[in-house]
Amino acid sequence: MSAPGTDSPDWIAVDWGTSHLRVWAIAGDTVIRAGQSDQGMGKLGPSEFEGALLALVAEWLPEGKVTPVLCAGMVGSRQGWVEAPYRAVPCTPLGETLARAPTRDARLQVHVVSGLKQARPADVMRGEETQIAGYLALNPGWDGVICLPGTHSKWVHLSAGEVVSFQTFLTGEAFALLSEHSVLRHGLSGWDAAGFTVGLAQGLERPERLLARLFTLRAEGLLDGLSPALARARLSGLLIGAEIASAKPYWLGQTVTVLGAGALSQLYVQALETLSVPVTSHPADDTTLAGLKLARKRLLQQEKLCAN
Amino acid sequence: MSAPGTDSPDWIAVDWGTSHLRVWAIAGDTVIRAGQSDQGMGKLGPSEFEGALLALVAEWLPEGKVTPVLCAGMVGSRQGWVEAPYRAVPCTPLGETLARAPTRDARLQVHVVSGLKQARPADVMRGEETQIAGYLALNPGWDGVICLPGTHSKWVHLSAGEVVSFQTFLTGEAFALLSEHSVLRHGLSGWDAAGFTVGLAQGLERPERLLARLFTLRAEGLLDGLSPALARARLSGLLIGAEIASAKPYWLGQTVTVLGAGALSQLYVQALETLSVPVTSHPADDTTLAGLKLARKRLLQQEKLCAN
Repeated sequence: MSAPGTDSPDWIAVDWGTSHLRVWAIAGDTVIRAGQSDQGMGKLGPSEFEGALLALVAEWLPEGKVTPVLCAGMVGSRQGWVEAPYRAVPCTPLGETLARAPTRDARLQVHVVSGLKQARPADVMRGEETQIAGYLALNPGWDGVICLPGTHSKWVHLSAGEVVSFQTFLTGEAFALLSEHSVLRHGLSGWDAAGFTVGLAQGLERPERLLARLFTLRAEGLLDGLSPALARARLSGLLIGAEIASAKPYWLGQTVTVLGAGALSQLYVQALETLSVPVTSHPADDTTLAGLKLARKRLLQQEKLCAN
Repeated sequence: MSAPGTDSPDWIAVDWGTSHLRVWAIAGDTVIRAGQSDQGMGKLGPSEFEGALLALVAEWLPEGKVTPVLCAGMVGSRQGWVEAPYRAVPCTPLGETLARAPTRDARLQVHVVSGLKQARPADVMRGEETQIAGYLALNPGWDGVICLPGTHSKWVHLSAGEVVSFQTFLTGEAFALLSEHSVLRHGLSGWDAAGFTVGLAQGLERPERLLARLFTLRAEGLLDGLSPALARARLSGLLIGAEIASAKPYWLGQTVTVLGAGALSQLYVQALETLSVPVTSHPADDTTLAGLKLARKRLLQQEKLCAN
């Protein structure tokens, strides 16, 4: 760490989800420091957010000066640092609504980005709106559908820079619950990609059979010696297949971008390719930061407007 | 307890599932004692079954005599007291295959009833075959479909006294996992029957939307103040609706008996009645015992045959 002041940040960008906390110190347009911890929103009580943030950024903050901090994610939920009201779709992914979080350290001024809500079917997002805004900033004029795989994977229809509608699926959480807590857990470990292909085909073809197909995994383990690696990958395929079959109104006739890192995103790409859907993938990392930069730019414009 | 010998049992019937243990002492055709504990198969190591049984029945056993014990349920699984091989459908629910469990107490002679297996789609049952046999014993000549609601609910096609095919659904376990371990758990408690009706209609109509509808419950809690009692009942309706929609090949054009006790069975009856399926319900309690009595009768005939 260099001494504060020699290259102190103009502001700090924060991606604060249920299970993780990532921070970037930014000077001009450049990231000069980065850090992360496992102090996600899910672990923290209302009074613990400031401390969890300071544990990562305290050394970056110059004395006698206020450093703006801009956060996105579940940190803005009712159980978070401050509740940032949802904005209703259709709307641009980022707007002018920001919530100010209470702080004791005079060096901090913290704002939290608003999430989005949809009336029917009822749905909410927090954090993804910032990724979507970042993706649009990196791909100006892009229209189509964005799929964000994860614990609660989301399908988002974008048109003319606005989120038109979206739908959340409990897919990732269902996979975690079934593979860690259900009767299936004894017969699941590792990963054999051939199992994913089988499960995906079954899930896509008959998504309504999910509850029965889950028990079939157990029975094949007992009767046919289905390997734990095949079974675990097939479980993933069954769930992702059922999700994608049910999300057909989103992807049918559309261009899809899968926004997310690593192996999980590649499974969604594979699934969509089997359906001949035009699909590309984009890592989520840089989109969150690009979205936070955009939110910061808007905030500055707003402040300038109000100062005049 | 009366002194052993004054009215000692001819044999002991045992219903031993994953989470419960129930015992009946029988003299002639009459239950003279009954008991139960929470020492289900899931809690016991291989060497602990005999002790768990003796904790309930030791006082009933006359000295200097062997009392036969007949068990049904998960006690016959690979993780149970002794593995009782599966019998393959189509077959009568009970057959001549019984497994002898190892015992140290000379007063005990323990047999375990075999479960059933199906090759395609792979499926297994342990315990339900005894209930089905008991139901047939109580309703001779009955043909149709039996639905056994539960942690792993089962649909069973019976014809001319044989199990033709069956299908297991992970419905009850999914409900437990989602209501106790998922993000939904914060917004679920109590029971408001109006929620079940809504969820049932949604599950029956679009079973393939399950993973999305689960998250909608959460969003309606956040946005519309959906009550925890409505939400919990709707979750149940969504899952049971999805199961029944997927089980259509079983109930279509058939007479259905729902075999099981209490509130859960009534939900299945309600669901099937909305589909105009001819349905009756039957408590599961007496069917298990009736099935074990039948298994005992067969065992005696077999022994007589071998003695001649």
